[in-house]
Amino acid sequence: MTRIAVDAMGGDYAPGEIVKGAVWAAQDYNVGIELVGQTDKIQKVLDEISKKGIRSNRGGYFIKNIKVDLSKLDIKITQADEIIEMGEAPGVAIRKKRNASIVLAVDAVAKGSSDAIVAAGSTGAAMASALFGLGRIRGIERPAIATALPTKKDPVILIDVGANSSSTPEMLVQFAMMGATFAKNVYNRNNPRIGVLNIGEEEEKGNQLVKETYKLLKENTVGLNFIGNTEGKELFQGDVDVVVCEGFVGNVALKTIEGCSMMLFKLIQQEFMTDFASKIVGLLAKPFMKRIYKRINYEEFGGALLLGVKGITVISHGRSSSYAIKNAVRVAKEAVESGVNKKIFELIQN
Amino acid sequence: MTRIAVDAMGGDYAPGEIVKGAVWAAQDYNVGIELVGQTDKIQKVLDEISKKGIRSNRGGYFIKNIKVDLSKLDIKITQADEIIEMGEAPGVAIRKKRNASIVLAVDAVAKGSSDAIVAAGSTGAAMASALFGLGRIRGIERPAIATALPTKKDPVILIDVGANSSSTPEMLVQFAMMGATFAKNVYNRNNPRIGVLNIGEEEEKGNQLVKETYKLLKENTVGLNFIGNTEGKELFQGDVDVVVCEGFVGNVALKTIEGCSMMLFKLIQQEFMTDFASKIVGLLAKPFMKRIYKRINYEEFGGALLLGVKGITVISHGRSSSYAIKNAVRVAKEAVESGVNKKIFELIQN
Repeated sequence: MTRIAVDAMGGDYAPGEIVKGAVWAAQDYNVGIELVGQTDKIQKVLDEISKKGIRSNRGGYFIKNIKVDLSKLDIKITQADEIIEMGEAPGVAIRKKRNASIVLAVDAVAKGSSDAIVAAGSTGAAMASALFGLGRIRGIERPAIATALPTKKDPVILIDVGANSSSTPEMLVQFAMMGATFAKNVYNRNNPRIGVLNIGEEEEKGNQLVKETYKLLKENTVGLNFIGNTEGKELFQGDVDVVVCEGFVGNVALKTIEGCSMMLFKLIQQEFMTDFASKIVGLLAKPFMKRIYKRINYEEFGGALLLGVKGITVISHGRSSSYAIKNAVRVAKEAVESGVNKKIFELIQN
Repeated sequence: MTRIAVDAMGGDYAPGEIVKGAVWAAQDYNVGIELVGQTDKIQKVLDEISKKGIRSNRGGYFIKNIKVDLSKLDIKITQADEIIEMGEAPGVAIRKKRNASIVLAVDAVAKGSSDAIVAAGSTGAAMASALFGLGRIRGIERPAIATALPTKKDPVILIDVGANSSSTPEMLVQFAMMGATFAKNVYNRNNPRIGVLNIGEEEEKGNQLVKETYKLLKENTVGLNFIGNTEGKELFQGDVDVVVCEGFVGNVALKTIEGCSMMLFKLIQQEFMTDFASKIVGLLAKPFMKRIYKRINYEEFGGALLLGVKGITVISHGRSSSYAIKNAVRVAKEAVESGVNKKIFELIQN
């Protein structure tokens, strides 16, 4: 059985929501879980789950009484004394705190007791731990973070959303290769369409980096299905499978999308609260709005995948609820079972 | 009376929507209009307006029968034989087509027959014409495009959204100065709060450009109210007045916001069309959705302002309807009457 090492101490609502989400995934997806963190705190959450089931009202979802029989699930705890806080410099922290939960979660994969990592704490610390503890896939210049975004049709993969603050055209071509492999093997896209995030459609548009990337992808000999530039507004049309960009730009885009969606839902909520009549309409419209929220909420996507490292690491949002963690474990499991890393390795060697 | 030169031939719905929007603005905002373009085509639209009033169903707004008495408005036509198309290389086009509508609209301001330009055609051509025909404000290294974005509270100014594809930290500091002057004089923000668009809050986050810009703004001696880094999701909180970024990043963010909002409205529409009951609820919810759409629709903001050039140029969306053009003329008028350029000049000299 695939087993996922979960950093139980990372994230705004750790360990409660993290442990609940991991247990929930174990029950729903037939996956083993290795909870890494402070045993007493983790055990307390497990005891609560045993008694009351899983409850949560975090992250826009109210989850009520999911019954759990822990004796039927494959869950183990690995003690970690330390925690890396959000403010710490990742490189320094992972060297100083050799017993931090994220470091030991990566160790679990390095040693083979688990197959992948789910982490909702410091992104920098998760990346540094994975890179240091597992190493790069041979031939990959830099790892990158890939995430799925909602569109009018099927989700689109955006890569890189923040692993690197600057990149070369050659790195972006590798990101395209990794993104294509991810889209093919985890999102079942046949011959995925690749775009470059740019400020216009024409080949000569944009800065030096994207112009040179365009040229390399156009000439590419690795068989990528390159379809040209993708503008910000086309990200949501569902007509491209993988969009490549520099980490800085991708991270700004990702957070802008999050902020913009949340603002819109807030404005809608406000409109439905102006008077008695609006409240009635709001009540009637609620199930529709909920369905849309579900479709665009990042919690559905479970987290971003660190690609280019020998091992699967899913990086979840700091504000992850149990529901988000459950989906992150699912993504980790699918990535492991699809053999995406082996396929990236094979593609890069050619 | 302030007079605005409008490129009647630029934009997807030119000249019809452009002329209608300009006439509408003349009537509503007590402003003179110089329509620059092919006289016969413009006259045809004016004749239609005289007979039927202003009607439009472009851009999400259905505008019906706004009565107009052209004899009471100050509207003149300036003949322009040529049109610069969207695909043309701007630098070449403005030199080759000396009688293009955008070139002559800029000439009108250079000669003093109008006070500002509104253009919905090629952004590159509008920028090149303005820069070539009016010149940079002394001391400004590069012009930048500023636009207002909706937030939970008051709009935020994002600068640069695409005038330059790459920038230096010194340029970004000038963008901050221009943005602050714009926010103060056109958006009535007292001591506007300035942020740098970045991928984290801490000073050491981001790429080289934003790190150095942060340092310069922190040390700045020109009295800007710098409040630190702004992440993509914080753009919409309404807690910052001006956010500075490189043109490439700003343009991606702007178009991502446009695409994301339009996708959400599309999804909501779809949800309200699934069955009979949902259609009823959709009908009831329509006025609320319309109010929100109005609040976030770029047409309300009328267009982006090219700052750093000796003269006001408002660059409107290519898909501008008459309603968008009307608002663009308003923004141009407000910018002229606020004396924003004189204030930028004074700030830069200090």
